[in-house]
Amino acid sequence: MARIVMKFGGTSVASVERIKTVARHVAREVNAGHEVAVIVSAMAGKTNELIGWTRETAPLHDAREYDTVVASGEQVTTGLLAIALLEIGVSARSWQGWQIPISTDDAHGAARITAINGAALIERFKEGQVAVIAGFQGVSPKGRITTLGRGGSDTSAVAIAAAVNAARCDIYTDVDGVYTTDPRIVAAARRLDRIAYEEMLEMASLGAKVLQTRSVELAMNHHVKVMVRSSFEAPESLAPALSGNEGLVGTLVCDEDEIVEQQIVSGIAYSKDEAKVTLVKVEDKPGVAARVFGPLAESNINVDMIVQNVSEDGRYTDMTFTVPVADFKRAEKVISAAKEEIGYKELRGSNDVVKISVIGVGMRSHAGVAAQMFRALADKGINIQAITTSEIKISILIDAAYTELAVRTLHSVYGLDKN
Amino acid sequence: MARIVMKFGGTSVASVERIKTVARHVAREVNAGHEVAVIVSAMAGKTNELIGWTRETAPLHDAREYDTVVASGEQVTTGLLAIALLEIGVSARSWQGWQIPISTDDAHGAARITAINGAALIERFKEGQVAVIAGFQGVSPKGRITTLGRGGSDTSAVAIAAAVNAARCDIYTDVDGVYTTDPRIVAAARRLDRIAYEEMLEMASLGAKVLQTRSVELAMNHHVKVMVRSSFEAPESLAPALSGNEGLVGTLVCDEDEIVEQQIVSGIAYSKDEAKVTLVKVEDKPGVAARVFGPLAESNINVDMIVQNVSEDGRYTDMTFTVPVADFKRAEKVISAAKEEIGYKELRGSNDVVKISVIGVGMRSHAGVAAQMFRALADKGINIQAITTSEIKISILIDAAYTELAVRTLHSVYGLDKN
Repeated sequence: MARIVMKFGGTSVASVERIKTVARHVAREVNAGHEVAVIVSAMAGKTNELIGWTRETAPLHDAREYDTVVASGEQVTTGLLAIALLEIGVSARSWQGWQIPISTDDAHGAARITAINGAALIERFKEGQVAVIAGFQGVSPKGRITTLGRGGSDTSAVAIAAAVNAARCDIYTDVDGVYTTDPRIVAAARRLDRIAYEEMLEMASLGAKVLQTRSVELAMNHHVKVMVRSSFEAPESLAPALSGNEGLVGTLVCDEDEIVEQQIVSGIAYSKDEAKVTLVKVEDKPGVAARVFGPLAESNINVDMIVQNVSEDGRYTDMTFTVPVADFKRAEKVISAAKEEIGYKELRGSNDVVKISVIGVGMRSHAGVAAQMFRALADKGINIQAITTSEIKISILIDAAYTELAVRTLHSVYGLDKN
Repeated sequence: MARIVMKFGGTSVASVERIKTVARHVAREVNAGHEVAVIVSAMAGKTNELIGWTRETAPLHDAREYDTVVASGEQVTTGLLAIALLEIGVSARSWQGWQIPISTDDAHGAARITAINGAALIERFKEGQVAVIAGFQGVSPKGRITTLGRGGSDTSAVAIAAAVNAARCDIYTDVDGVYTTDPRIVAAARRLDRIAYEEMLEMASLGAKVLQTRSVELAMNHHVKVMVRSSFEAPESLAPALSGNEGLVGTLVCDEDEIVEQQIVSGIAYSKDEAKVTLVKVEDKPGVAARVFGPLAESNINVDMIVQNVSEDGRYTDMTFTVPVADFKRAEKVISAAKEEIGYKELRGSNDVVKISVIGVGMRSHAGVAAQMFRALADKGINIQAITTSEIKISILIDAAYTELAVRTLHSVYGLDKN
């Protein structure tokens, strides 16, 4: 017997039929003797409908009222799932953020959880009752409904798991785990049995969409074990959580030292959400970088990779940097407006780039990972346009046309292909 | 300056466009210097969608979870209306039942309001803030969301008006007041400027759909003046509530003694929701009525009108009674099953009847109202099949084919036709 938290996202509860399937997943865990809290999102499409109405009412709407409207989506799912559980003989009740309460700050629309009182939930666990909890929401110090921002249900689940001291937090999603890379690109991609929090964090922020970045941070800080599992398998075909064997289908996100056979590289991520801006013939003198990046920062444009070539004649250089695709046009405008001040000859922009990242905590103790990467890509004739590194990842910018080739090559080079 | 409560039903808030119109109605009252609380229903169709989901999930669902699901509809409207008000420069915030709180008992699905704490609302009124309140809902002693049952938003509005000691409660609907009878039947029907609580109560329970019966009872008990007004006129074309003149379009529901020129008869109502059952040749001896109506009561079938003919030979009589159309088939079965015990020759049933009611508090002090009715109908050759009376109303059962003729005749006889 253990206490576990289960989380189901919008596509897993998109219809009454799917909600009934979720109830069977929960019943499997209850029947295995576990105490269960389930966190649910709004039915797929509902949140967008609600957001659409707020925008139609007023483009610049009050964030407190936005939260009141949008949080209703999860409320509906909690009631329906509780009904579905009761119908198959599982004791259950719904909980909204304000009923538990899940206390947050008052940053409406993007609130942060400040405290969760798990006492009432734990009391009900002892009576054998499943807690069906609205994700994505809480209550402010002033008693108003808050939301945690999009995708916040993962964060709710991890926070509840920490509050009730759960043995594990199972995130049910439309994939059956975290893969070494996108299986749509690399057929030989493998599901990882385990991945370290820090690796998952890099994966999430580099384009893998399995878990929200904030939820991984929270799990890492509170040492909550998170398991990514599939919600689309027949519920009865899966083994219950913590069934004592290690053969569970899914990926466990955990502390680095709980991973026995640590690979040097755990995964390859890619992101097409980058645009490249090159300033040709910038004067190579102190202060020029500040004149370029100051205006961008003031316009809230996030610059990721920066490359400045070595000046050939000591007077002029070229400067390349990347921004999110969504900010590309705005960045071009900001830089063009400051042309006089910066002093450059030409601005060249491009959307046809991709950022490819190699991630692994093993890189901390192993040299040569980057060299291996550069050699493999050079062998395939792929030109690297920019590079950034951290302790556990190397990211490069290349021509988008080479995305698949590069990902497949690196996946193979680092021994990630399945047998 | 006064404090008023405004209530808008589902069709008045059916779309974002209509919600914006409601905001302009509210702005009109705020601009006239009034303190305003607005009670709103769910957007038309939403409650049915939510109820549909609960039924699809389980035919017999937990009433607490049903309430959690269904109450989300009003929550959405409160947020959207608050946004619409802020957008046009009117200070406003949304309030859910649990935030005020509107305390109810725990009869989920059909809860009764036990107390409303108006303090927080009144505090905000003083800051010039409009309270946008979710109708139809409250919070139970255990902190669960409750609903008041269908149409309960009228009741919420009257209860809030009593709690904040409002000068008036304006119910905005798709008609511009209470009419002497259905204008679709009688072109000469007049809008009543005023109507007494008791008359409105009879009207509501006899088929007029303008106000919910419970809300009228509550208004009567707490002496809350209720005004029925149109939500489909251009908001700026209406005069503000309590503007000092008596020329407001609408009908005021108030105490009898506030109506100066009291008519003897105020209105004619009709209901096709009656079915007639006649038992031919029933033994005319003590206890027979109990043997007929006992089984019907046990089956929760409400009997309205009862007529027992005088026995010609002292041995047999005929007995006629009415039941709601929805219970007609069931009533026939119940009576047939008890045929031996009751002892009758034949059961004759009919749907082709209508109940027509003449209502007026003036009837208390005026004799001859019934005689006038019977004479007028006889003149038109309309046969009366059953009669029931109370202090302020007379109801008769006639052949449904004569509905229009009878209503028009009575409307004219009692001097209700407009000039």
